[in-house]
Amino acid sequence: MSKLIDLSHPLEHGQPNFPWDPKLTIRVHNTVESIGYNISQLSMSSHQGTHLDAPFHFYDDGKTLDQMTLNQFYGPATWIDLAAGSFLEAKSEITVEMLQSHAEKFTPGAKILYRTGWDRMFGQPEFFSDFPTLTLEAAQWIADRKIGLLGMDTPTPSSDWLECHHILLKQGVEIVIVEGLTHLEQLPEQFTFIGFPMNLIGRDGSPIRAVACVD
Amino acid sequence: MSKLIDLSHPLEHGQPNFPWDPKLTIRVHNTVESIGYNISQLSMSSHQGTHLDAPFHFYDDGKTLDQMTLNQFYGPATWIDLAAGSFLEAKSEITVEMLQSHAEKFTPGAKILYRTGWDRMFGQPEFFSDFPTLTLEAAQWIADRKIGLLGMDTPTPSSDWLECHHILLKQGVEIVIVEGLTHLEQLPEQFTFIGFPMNLIGRDGSPIRAVACVD
Repeated sequence: MSKLIDLSHPLEHGQPNFPWDPKLTIRVHNTVESIGYNISQLSMSSHQGTHLDAPFHFYDDGKTLDQMTLNQFYGPATWIDLAAGSFLEAKSEITVEMLQSHAEKFTPGAKILYRTGWDRMFGQPEFFSDFPTLTLEAAQWIADRKIGLLGMDTPTPSSDWLECHHILLKQGVEIVIVEGLTHLEQLPEQFTFIGFPMNLIGRDGSPIRAVACVD
Repeated sequence: MSKLIDLSHPLEHGQPNFPWDPKLTIRVHNTVESIGYNISQLSMSSHQGTHLDAPFHFYDDGKTLDQMTLNQFYGPATWIDLAAGSFLEAKSEITVEMLQSHAEKFTPGAKILYRTGWDRMFGQPEFFSDFPTLTLEAAQWIADRKIGLLGMDTPTPSSDWLECHHILLKQGVEIVIVEGLTHLEQLPEQFTFIGFPMNLIGRDGSPIRAVACVD
């Protein structure tokens, strides 16, 4: 049996998210007592909790989820620990220098997750405001290496969110951005990343159940 | 690169579902033009489209999604073609006799998908009313074999939905039921089934992106 590591935060009614996003609501739609079975209504942002971004999130002419291939969301992956087993401080910068010591992993098409330790703040309001943040130079350094997927344990890669997403999602770069991961410290160096989006047609992103498979 | 086969129907605003379920709505929440990025609001049933059932769907004291293990949703799987490359007729019965010729596959813990060809009707109103249906004897035959996961290309296993779910989900049986699969005819005999639910706490089921991985 494969060892599976859950890299996803739980989804619970009313949990904090980005202030301007639709809120997560999970409602009882019907019950065993009333009609014989329990069923729920789920309402959420396409970027709720652990989720991924398609290029269309920031570019009207960018690829939507259904224009991407399943292999963009699945495959051999690795991770780097920017906090070296500890935690990066609130609002600290993630610089090119911090990435350069892991440069050998940033090969074309690579799937790379980075750990800052910020996932411990999930559920607190600061989770969405004070996270460690990629500098735009660091984002460009990553884009230049043409990796395939970049995941992180922060809710978004950078407080310069507009420019950073433009760098990572632009045509010809089109890195799959996976936001809001957790439990990265449990990962071995090599694993299979699994994080398929919902099969939404024409849309910008999707909550995912991100899982690592260790054979 | 692994070969991945998408076993999931698309999710599109307003598509048909069970008449008494919440409708799928996919709304534009904001746009590049207005605030710099495209973002959507998703609202759906916990049993929308391609999805899976937890025991709590039919038993108030049954396991909820978060009480199940990731290995229940991932692993070596096989499939059987009850229509032998063709299509079972509308409302036809799936009997014990039809399953018995595949009996060697129904081992304890096995993940088994069955094809009827009914997925071709997805999007039509009859998809939810006239599907081929497991007899209760066939459901009991499956439950007695203590398989781990039963998937199908119909929207639910049986028109006797209450009794059938009671048989398959009851304590000590607790088969993961995956409903609304498609493209099963593309599968080789052996593959890895991947179909993780959203990380919903305390709930009854979840839409999934079901994928087969063929190594």
